[in-house]
Amino acid sequence: MAKKTLNDLFVHMLKDVYYAEQKVSKSLPKMKDATANADLKRAFGDHIEETKGQVDRLKKVFEAIGEKAEGVECEAIEGLVKEAEEVMDEFEGDVRDVGLLAAAQAVEHYEIARYGTLITWAEQLGHTEAVKLLQDNIAQEKRADQHLNNLALHGVNKTAA
Amino acid sequence: MAKKTLNDLFVHMLKDVYYAEQKVSKSLPKMKDATANADLKRAFGDHIEETKGQVDRLKKVFEAIGEKAEGVECEAIEGLVKEAEEVMDEFEGDVRDVGLLAAAQAVEHYEIARYGTLITWAEQLGHTEAVKLLQDNIAQEKRADQHLNNLALHGVNKTAA
Repeated sequence: MAKKTLNDLFVHMLKDVYYAEQKVSKSLPKMKDATANADLKRAFGDHIEETKGQVDRLKKVFEAIGEKAEGVECEAIEGLVKEAEEVMDEFEGDVRDVGLLAAAQAVEHYEIARYGTLITWAEQLGHTEAVKLLQDNIAQEKRADQHLNNLALHGVNKTAA
Repeated sequence: MAKKTLNDLFVHMLKDVYYAEQKVSKSLPKMKDATANADLKRAFGDHIEETKGQVDRLKKVFEAIGEKAEGVECEAIEGLVKEAEEVMDEFEGDVRDVGLLAAAQAVEHYEIARYGTLITWAEQLGHTEAVKLLQDNIAQEKRADQHLNNLALHGVNKTAA
């Protein structure tokens, strides 16, 4: 077996994130339905659309590096999504809302970490087109996290305390 | 069954993070052993000590709010640690190093997200002593992530590309 390279590691993590974004795009509609908070519902709704765009951009990254777009199961995102589902099962009302918000932020942070790593590696590997596409995704995730953070500090949490 | 409160959610996430830090403290020594890179070995070694301090601080948080210190299984951290193990199994040399570095950063990001949420909730619940202890932990995690980021940009990754 040939020694695995940084490009192999890059492709592996790309598949992992591709799987994660698809998982998130299935989970967000449930989270949107589970909250009665208008701000949070809107935030989740907006991020459903953004996530679809991110999946499309990841497909373009695969294309740009000449690899087939496919996911590999990512246990970290499975765990994160499961935590959101536990919140929906075990809590209700305002407390459920802050729990869902926190679960969404944990997902954002995971994706931001992964995109940050992918961008560093893509730069080192000379995957210029991939860098641009991944930068669009990380910028969107950071804005989404910042928006959730504002809701956490000034909106949703206040009513639950 | 009484309606679950924000404090219940806070305690649940505290147990989740307590479990996660203990899991990380068991995983880091393996990661330290698995790298030959001196900078990364030192970073993992330093973070083993920091993590022990963080577990102690979490015990004090439980004490401060009158709850028993105990963990609940956290599937997100299980997934993140498993990803680090896969890197150790499937990659070697410089490529393994950058993979381990990325795995460690994903763990830091997860913990930073969780501590950020816990601090917001502790403030809203008036858990003043808990806020201070959790702020110490998040500050340490952010420094650790920043240090890993510097290694990723200027050190470890360069040799793998």
